[in-house]
Amino acid sequence: TTRSSSHPRSNNLLFRQLFEKESSTYTYLLADRSHPDKPALLIDPVDKMVERDLSLVKELGLKLIYAMNTHVHADHVTGSGLIKNKIPGVKSIISKASNSQADLLIEAGDKICFGDLFLEVRATPGHTLGCVTYVTGDGPDQPQPRMAFTGDALLIRGCGRTDFQGGSSLQLYKSVHSQIFTLPKDTLLFPAHDYKGFTVSTVEEEMLYNPRLTKEEEAFKNIMENLKLPYPKMIDIAVPANMVCGLQDVSAKPVEATSN
Amino acid sequence: TTRSSSHPRSNNLLFRQLFEKESSTYTYLLADRSHPDKPALLIDPVDKMVERDLSLVKELGLKLIYAMNTHVHADHVTGSGLIKNKIPGVKSIISKASNSQADLLIEAGDKICFGDLFLEVRATPGHTLGCVTYVTGDGPDQPQPRMAFTGDALLIRGCGRTDFQGGSSLQLYKSVHSQIFTLPKDTLLFPAHDYKGFTVSTVEEEMLYNPRLTKEEEAFKNIMENLKLPYPKMIDIAVPANMVCGLQDVSAKPVEATSN
Ligand SMILES: [Fe+2]
Ligand SMILES: [Fe+2]
Repeated sequence: TTRSSSHPRSNNLLFRQLFEKESSTYTYLLADRSHPDKPALLIDPVDKMVERDLSLVKELGLKLIYAMNTHVHADHVTGSGLIKNKIPGVKSIISKASNSQADLLIEAGDKICFGDLFLEVRATPGHTLGCVTYVTGDGPDQPQPRMAFTGDALLIRGCGRTDFQGGSSLQLYKSVHSQIFTLPKDTLLFPAHDYKGFTVSTVEEEMLYNPRLTKEEEAFKNIMENLKLPYPKMIDIAVPANMVCGLQDVSAKPVEATSN
Repeated sequence: TTRSSSHPRSNNLLFRQLFEKESSTYTYLLADRSHPDKPALLIDPVDKMVERDLSLVKELGLKLIYAMNTHVHADHVTGSGLIKNKIPGVKSIISKASNSQADLLIEAGDKICFGDLFLEVRATPGHTLGCVTYVTGDGPDQPQPRMAFTGDALLIRGCGRTDFQGGSSLQLYKSVHSQIFTLPKDTLLFPAHDYKGFTVSTVEEEMLYNPRLTKEEEAFKNIMENLKLPYPKMIDIAVPANMVCGLQDVSAKPVEATSN
């Protein structure tokens, strides 16, 4: 039988999952509501939903400090540049390995702090070369169970395609098994997309029921090489835009995040 | 500033929010995972998503006991009858005031128990005559903060229309103010629909920011009478079907729930 929890428990964490229907993208809002500033971050904001997201941030009395992406999306344009324009002081974040521009270029092992809470960065390449998974901290004052924002590396009962953007099915297989399936079994998994209306899963559930990643490495490779998916229709617009925070004229000068 | 929590904390509750894109309907799965049987219920299941929902129930090792509706939906067909056909023993639930058929016809004050957890029934008419809101129990072993499944009585920053199915704007206003806004401020609100990608709100948030229900009663009535919404396109199919659990030939004999 499956032991499964469904929600993080931390008196400090304010958490909201937000959906964009056209690309079936999830954006996540996290904040430390116990900190006087209520510092907040958005993971994978979508350009056309920025007004909704910032209005929620304002109503909740939060101070947005980071607009971050799990990877260079091919199916929608990120809202991180727009957010920077609307709220001066917000810093954009993406992985150094994505070869993109952002205020902070993060790497495996970095910590992204907001108030007394933090996310740790895990490198999970395979869907794209620069994919990362953000995982809530391990510690007594951090959310329990832990939460992992997996981007397109691991989807609920699925995973992102591996045939573009430096993708590699073997690399994805290794990433998920070494970086995500090694997390505690009750870790809540929050993907960048879901196409069937699921909102959350757990490490245990995906280790048992993910139809692709429960297979052996070679079988997984075969599945991924025979998906016969159409050419991603937004890729030629979205990828170049997303490499510069969704704006062609973004003024962010890349600097490296303080490594931890 | 707004104090806002985002998720229920109970070691016992397994909770999943599920989305159906076409009608933007949320279905909720709740279970007592500490009980040996893992008894579970589904609130507002959608007919075409029954396979997804039951497959999740099975994977999580749950025993589904109730398929319940907040009201007679006009925009989609309920999955409760289909579920009864697929899992013998599951009981359908709807309010007595809805004049519909189901195994259990519930009323204000009734308790719906699953394992050591329970939902209490609050009558919240106004969108339809028979609308109810299901609220998690008040007690040391019940989820904290509490959770309210409001159907279409209260939506996030909105509410259901009041021009069909015995609707009444004044009744809806009274229902929300007396039955929902009187819950603890941190109560999590889970509506039957959201059209902007929000997944959850709180009593405090809606008391501050709901653009309709923060108005005076007379202003609210004016808003609701001037929405100029189109005729609900599914209503002539959905309503008669939903009055019999979504199936024309449902065999449920209505009996009354044990009142509490
Ligand atoms: Fe992607
Ligand atoms: Fe409705």
